Amino acid sequence: MVYLNGDFIPKHQASISVMDRGFLFGDGVYEVIPVYAGKIFRLNEHLQRLQNSLDSIQVSNPYSNEQWLDILQKILNFSSKSNQSLYLQITRGADSCRKHSFESLSPTVFVESNSLTPKTKAELKVGFGAIIQTDFRWQRCDIKSTSLLANIMYSQQAKHHQVEEVILHREQTITEGATSNVFAIKDNTLFTHPTGTHILSGITRDLVLESAKHCNLNIQESAPTLAELLAADEVWISSSTREVMPITHVDQQPINNGKIGNHWSNVYDHYQNLKHA
Amino acid sequence: MVYLNGDFIPKHQASISVMDRGFLFGDGVYEVIPVYAGKIFRLNEHLQRLQNSLDSIQVSNPYSNEQWLDILQKILNFSSKSNQSLYLQITRGADSCRKHSFESLSPTVFVESNSLTPKTKAELKVGFGAIIQTDFRWQRCDIKSTSLLANIMYSQQAKHHQVEEVILHREQTITEGATSNVFAIKDNTLFTHPTGTHILSGITRDLVLESAKHCNLNIQESAPTLAELLAADEVWISSSTREVMPITHVDQQPINNGKIGNHWSNVYDHYQNLKHA
Repeated sequence: MVYLNGDFIPKHQASISVMDRGFLFGDGVYEVIPVYAGKIFRLNEHLQRLQNSLDSIQVSNPYSNEQWLDILQKILNFSSKSNQSLYLQITRGADSCRKHSFESLSPTVFVESNSLTPKTKAELKVGFGAIIQTDFRWQRCDIKSTSLLANIMYSQQAKHHQVEEVILHREQTITEGATSNVFAIKDNTLFTHPTGTHILSGITRDLVLESAKHCNLNIQESAPTLAELLAADEVWISSSTREVMPITHVDQQPINNGKIGNHWSNVYDHYQNLKHA
Repeated sequence: MVYLNGDFIPKHQASISVMDRGFLFGDGVYEVIPVYAGKIFRLNEHLQRLQNSLDSIQVSNPYSNEQWLDILQKILNFSSKSNQSLYLQITRGADSCRKHSFESLSPTVFVESNSLTPKTKAELKVGFGAIIQTDFRWQRCDIKSTSLLANIMYSQQAKHHQVEEVILHREQTITEGATSNVFAIKDNTLFTHPTGTHILSGITRDLVLESAKHCNLNIQESAPTLAELLAADEVWISSSTREVMPITHVDQQPINNGKIGNHWSNVYDHYQNLKHA
């Protein structure tokens, strides 16, 4: 069952007009929210980011936080799984004809949930590969928009190269991954691109920084260069569904001889505590 | 009536799955093709550009050119209007679950047509305004994709400022308009950004260049700077539905004292001949 514009309906019956601006223009925003042991994780932070995305594209939030919680809880209750991943999408709505500029429309709201099985620590400890690509995305990556074709193209490259992620750089400065934030650790200091228009301000990114501080790492919100990334002691990526994941090979070159780092192990453990706090 | 995945149906009945990757990811491409006096204008060029866009995102073209022509002709015949604007959209199709990377899916094909009333020469001769913005779009503007949120944001700014277009620059170099190509004319020479990944290679752009050559302008496919644009004798924009349009004010500053140029007038006339050739 999914939620669409006020109704809870079977997924195969959930359809929208071809005039929906989400379909015609990628004119929408979304959120992915993990649910652990039945509890929606960092809901307020995700709803705040959703609000920021909506504000950026001038779409009114159709629901209060209480109404959102009610919808999300009902969607979760259709499944017996205790770990789930909620997906919320809001588009500007369906117009009567296709034109770029917009009037005020009734937004389209789509919510679904899927079961979530985060990798175990043992599964993560094998390490993961990434490739490097130039970041050709737009310069409003702070908006979590559904105009995602660039990210799709990168994700397909990752699949083609049988790696976990494509790590992006603008003129040798690492921005983020196609579907994650990126961290480089060197000599007890964590480096990551500062928030701004070139990266998505990840909720999980914040939690990784919180965990890293707790584990006595120095935090430098300054972006590593590509050379610094390759010379790092540890490289991690983070996302809501992947949590914090060690990258041990970049463009087939081993990071720190391909060894999983102690910092990652500590931060991973603390992150697990946060999940169940 | 519209065309959707093999059927000709009323527009209000045309709906797609929420799992369509066009809706979830802006994972699709499109074309807009003008029809003059019942004749589809430069069909082969538009179908070739559609093919280029599809190739860039690894979607197979579901139809041969003959099949496209058959569909387009049928759609046109639902209307008695002799001037129409065809809209074709192809997305990667609907998947069973949301994930960035893709397998081979059955593409979604949507086609509609609307009546087209190009402005008359008298209507164009009043001149139009534009504003300048930095180009924050992605760097694959050669793909005519439906991930159009940046263009939507610009178009809304144009509407807000009551101007016809937002003209974009990357580090002071004029790329194109949010929904058009841009031309600056100085001392009998036309300057426009060369084709590549920073602009859409417009069919109308090619026709404007053809017309300008015919009118004895020198053609320089090199991009004017913002300063050069403001100091130009004439500034034009072009698109399939707007044809070639004189811009007389940029950021409220008059171009050549706000006068319509002779070159525009000549090129406009030749373009009209091409339409009915």
